[in-house]
Amino acid sequence: MTEATETAVAEGQIRELLDRWQDAVNKKDIEGLMRFYAPDVVAFDVIPPLRFVGAADYRKNWEWGFEMCPDQGTFRSQEVTLAVGDEIAFCHRLNNMTGTDKSGQAFDCWVRWTVCFKKIDGQWLIVHEHISVPVDMETNQGVMELTPSDK
Amino acid sequence: MTEATETAVAEGQIRELLDRWQDAVNKKDIEGLMRFYAPDVVAFDVIPPLRFVGAADYRKNWEWGFEMCPDQGTFRSQEVTLAVGDEIAFCHRLNNMTGTDKSGQAFDCWVRWTVCFKKIDGQWLIVHEHISVPVDMETNQGVMELTPSDK
Repeated sequence: MTEATETAVAEGQIRELLDRWQDAVNKKDIEGLMRFYAPDVVAFDVIPPLRFVGAADYRKNWEWGFEMCPDQGTFRSQEVTLAVGDEIAFCHRLNNMTGTDKSGQAFDCWVRWTVCFKKIDGQWLIVHEHISVPVDMETNQGVMELTPSDK
Repeated sequence: MTEATETAVAEGQIRELLDRWQDAVNKKDIEGLMRFYAPDVVAFDVIPPLRFVGAADYRKNWEWGFEMCPDQGTFRSQEVTLAVGDEIAFCHRLNNMTGTDKSGQAFDCWVRWTVCFKKIDGQWLIVHEHISVPVDMETNQGVMELTPSDK
């Protein structure tokens, strides 16, 4: 394969991984979801702690999230940028999550989402994930109501 | 060069870039600092907006930060992970920033920092940066007091 073809193939693999990852999130399929993460994944999530180290630690966070949001909700991405190399890749995007939490409270929030991949034994895996909302300097409040239209 | 040697060389280049980047931050050298960013960098910072698009937009944010913190301060990294490919690389780490802001208020805060690189015309540049603190779900407050010892 030429280098351009190899890159196109790898890009296709990463996009397919992200689609299947999203399916697993939508279905709250924790086993399916965790297959996309490397055992030594390091994740920075919207909520504390500072970081999750390792898939077992991060799994508990996803289980908690699935429990917090029992309904289906929606999850859509915008401003997706993908950079793919031979064995390293990353993606950053804005994700909109809407739904109702288990206390019946509706939410509709845009978060910033960076995902970093490594090809390990021929398979792309997520080795790092960073998800956040900005924090207002004056009030120290998490800013949940921004949308991509707010420049 | 063998593939292993090429990777070692690229890792050295990225580490050197990160050192020089930090020098520029310490010296508040905005011209020097901006040379490490690609013109089309997309950055997610601790503070709003959701994202900065392009170096000119992001530069204003750094200028504001330098103005906010007129003294030298300290900046140190921990749990640094670097993944380097032929033309794509990323680094994630926990950064401790201490100092005094221009109102005389001392700060000492750990932030999560992800940096993504691309080799463009033979030169590594930062194409994406994601910096954040976690937000407490109960209070919606940014959590500034966590340290790496808090698991």
